[in-house]
Amino acid sequence: MAYDPDNVFARILRGEIPCRKVYEDDHVLAFHDINPQAPVHVLVIPKGAYVSMDDFTANASDQEIGALFRAVGRIARELGVAEPGYRILANAGADAHQEVPHLHIHIFGGRPLGRMLPDSAG
Amino acid sequence: MAYDPDNVFARILRGEIPCRKVYEDDHVLAFHDINPQAPVHVLVIPKGAYVSMDDFTANASDQEIGALFRAVGRIARELGVAEPGYRILANAGADAHQEVPHLHIHIFGGRPLGRMLPDSAG
Repeated sequence: MAYDPDNVFARILRGEIPCRKVYEDDHVLAFHDINPQAPVHVLVIPKGAYVSMDDFTANASDQEIGALFRAVGRIARELGVAEPGYRILANAGADAHQEVPHLHIHIFGGRPLGRMLPDSAG
Repeated sequence: MAYDPDNVFARILRGEIPCRKVYEDDHVLAFHDINPQAPVHVLVIPKGAYVSMDDFTANASDQEIGALFRAVGRIARELGVAEPGYRILANAGADAHQEVPHLHIHIFGGRPLGRMLPDSAG
């Protein structure tokens, strides 16, 4: 799938759409989900134009991959969910209901978190 | 939390417990979950002694982080779920019901995958 430069996260990265930013560095931006599904629900995205986990894991550098997941850990600690616990989730492609075609890692924290089996309907 | 060298994944890494291996390299081992929650359900773990995403993102090298997530992408492609889509998930800590205290990334693929909201009960 080709990258769509007008997807909503690309527009957030360009500052065309506002976000509630929680973290930013050279490789990563993170912001609160506008439709939170848990007490803490943050999206962590690479600044590079990667459609999905598939694209990212095939084409990003170790530095970019390291930066993305280090940011996940740092944000969880800063938001106070690292100690009690949190969940990360990423959907890749149609079967997983990926909605925005720019890789995003969800961080979910705060009680209650269910067990979230993959076949549970939303 | 200190790393427990007798957790089940440490024992699998030492070959004390068998697994249905799908991938291995210098940094990573992946195997089928013994209690699959989707048509494809694979666990991808670092060979390093990391309790959780929190531990891993704080203490692993870019090379180890890159290796883990590159392996996720490669395995999804090899298992034929990259094109239709797949979900990755990792639980860190008690609130997220992390059961084995060695970081593991779940790969879920194959239809149907629900939307898996974080508050859905298992």
